[in-house]
Amino acid sequence: MATLRDIFKNFIARPETEDGIFSEDEVRLANRNSGTLLETLKHNITPTGLHYLLIHFDVPSIDAPSHKLVFGKGFNAPYALTLDDIRALPRQTMPVTLECAGNGRTGMSPRTHSMPWGVEAVGTSAWTGTLLAPLIERAQPKNGTVEIVFSGADRGFDKGVEHAFGRSLTLQQLAELDVLLVHEMNGQPLLPQHGAPLRIIVPGWYGMASVKWLSTIEATDTPYQGYQQVRTYRYRDHKDDEGRPVTTMRVKSLMAPPGIPDWVTRLRHLRAGPVTIAGRAWSGGGVAISKVEFNDGLGWQDATLTAPKGQYDWTGWTIDWNATPGEHVLSCRATDLNGEIQPLEPRWDASGFGNNAVQKVQVFVDSN
Amino acid sequence: MATLRDIFKNFIARPETEDGIFSEDEVRLANRNSGTLLETLKHNITPTGLHYLLIHFDVPSIDAPSHKLVFGKGFNAPYALTLDDIRALPRQTMPVTLECAGNGRTGMSPRTHSMPWGVEAVGTSAWTGTLLAPLIERAQPKNGTVEIVFSGADRGFDKGVEHAFGRSLTLQQLAELDVLLVHEMNGQPLLPQHGAPLRIIVPGWYGMASVKWLSTIEATDTPYQGYQQVRTYRYRDHKDDEGRPVTTMRVKSLMAPPGIPDWVTRLRHLRAGPVTIAGRAWSGGGVAISKVEFNDGLGWQDATLTAPKGQYDWTGWTIDWNATPGEHVLSCRATDLNGEIQPLEPRWDASGFGNNAVQKVQVFVDSN
Repeated sequence: MATLRDIFKNFIARPETEDGIFSEDEVRLANRNSGTLLETLKHNITPTGLHYLLIHFDVPSIDAPSHKLVFGKGFNAPYALTLDDIRALPRQTMPVTLECAGNGRTGMSPRTHSMPWGVEAVGTSAWTGTLLAPLIERAQPKNGTVEIVFSGADRGFDKGVEHAFGRSLTLQQLAELDVLLVHEMNGQPLLPQHGAPLRIIVPGWYGMASVKWLSTIEATDTPYQGYQQVRTYRYRDHKDDEGRPVTTMRVKSLMAPPGIPDWVTRLRHLRAGPVTIAGRAWSGGGVAISKVEFNDGLGWQDATLTAPKGQYDWTGWTIDWNATPGEHVLSCRATDLNGEIQPLEPRWDASGFGNNAVQKVQVFVDSN
Repeated sequence: MATLRDIFKNFIARPETEDGIFSEDEVRLANRNSGTLLETLKHNITPTGLHYLLIHFDVPSIDAPSHKLVFGKGFNAPYALTLDDIRALPRQTMPVTLECAGNGRTGMSPRTHSMPWGVEAVGTSAWTGTLLAPLIERAQPKNGTVEIVFSGADRGFDKGVEHAFGRSLTLQQLAELDVLLVHEMNGQPLLPQHGAPLRIIVPGWYGMASVKWLSTIEATDTPYQGYQQVRTYRYRDHKDDEGRPVTTMRVKSLMAPPGIPDWVTRLRHLRAGPVTIAGRAWSGGGVAISKVEFNDGLGWQDATLTAPKGQYDWTGWTIDWNATPGEHVLSCRATDLNGEIQPLEPRWDASGFGNNAVQKVQVFVDSN
């Protein structure tokens, strides 16, 4: 009998892509994985149910009352916690901006055959949980531990390799990051699609690090070789490149497109006159935004910033624009405190990761 | 100065489509309009935030405390209600299954250039509100009224025509339907993307009738000519056909695909042995489901039904299947009490509406 790997062989190859033309696989992924609606960028907290979703496999059905988070292999004092145990621990709430590492993939040419994100795979929620570091300490990682591995209950195949979604962080990274073990989102229990009943939030990093449906935590004395760690989420110059790990988010900004849209093309229309343009800007690793600029085709102008509500929250910005009749391309560009600035064109990546090029919004302004 | 309509002329034409090849416009729509995740078909109530969304324009920002629903033109006793007024009225909760009329559009050949739904644009929520009929009666429709028109706060263009989303129902339809004026969903205030603060739910009909962000209700003595009533949501044999209105949902069923998926193709893998397949079935106009059949390639077998929790709720079904090694195509087929049965292939429609053909799920079963 043929094994699954044999049977799949004919199906899993990822075809070449053509600019502006998409396959049924890509559309199917876009129908499953939803983006934040850009009009919600006016709000600091993305409305519940509109935070972007990137779900590799199926949302697992987990019975929350009986679910246990197991601190297992590689610890001297392994133990397990129920959801009730975790709810009883000291709690804190952090607004954290998360972006999918593949956001902007369709802006790259050629693009890889995967989830065809435009610009919309970003959102901010108020995440509530408890700090993870003391819980790991309590389990006592064995001598020689180099990484802590987080595994979810979601399981499937990628390029013929069956695996549960898993990611690792080094002890050094864990010491520097305020990783949160999360059970609430926007003041309510985690929704199934966001990792219920338990997930981690790795603030300042792209979303892949924030493992959902968290089931086991292990310590390891060799670097973790899980599929999602070493086979994907790497910046690669060509498809056979071993690559460099994708980690913190790159500096970026988006605007809520002004005016009203055309249904199919999403092109915008507005009446001539003054209009306030609003948006959000963020960077990675807890680095603050120092500047957002807006451009209507006549040069860059500084926008007004509003302070974020925490180190890992995005920064609001607004600018008053006088819309003059005709066709315009609007764009925005953020700079962070490290002096990193968004490029005008994407840096190409073989997997379509890390596109932080400026957003371009085409608008038509009527004189009447 | 060119008007918007002049400028748009070059942009709004909907191109011809090719089977299996999609445009950037279609992908952008798929990234905005999210489908229900098929794995949630195991649950009667679609988890909050996963109910499908079809949003023609932008989600409007409405200040709920100051929002007023106006019973205006065409009434002898016009009046307005605040959200608090409506919350104080007699309330009832109904589980109602809603499906987008364009669900299954990609299954038609050739397909129209619009939102490229696969099978996932369906969901069930517990909607809470008050019956609409007494509120319309209180406003006293003028003599000669033939229809009641419902308009939302969402506004945009379609094929160059600027309009707010609006739909009408005849007095006769209103008398026969339990239309609900809704302010809660799954026990919580309506989410912005589902029509907050107020919407209607027209049970048994495709989703376009359930106007979101409801702002005005008017009575009219001539049939409503709004874009969403006469230019779209019509079954048409060819694109210049005036067409017949899309109304109640057609009989249909879906299964939660068994096993685990491949990330990009979503093809399914499972191990040989017994597995329970579960899904949902529904029809329109409050007609009950009488039968669901399952087929693994060896003929149709009756599934076991579980009773719906109301006339407009979908029906759960399960069947035990013995997965044998190899490749299989699984399908399910519902019949309603009127004897309507799902076709094996879609009935073609020029706009891609009303596809209720049986779902086909490709699975690979490993012997080990």
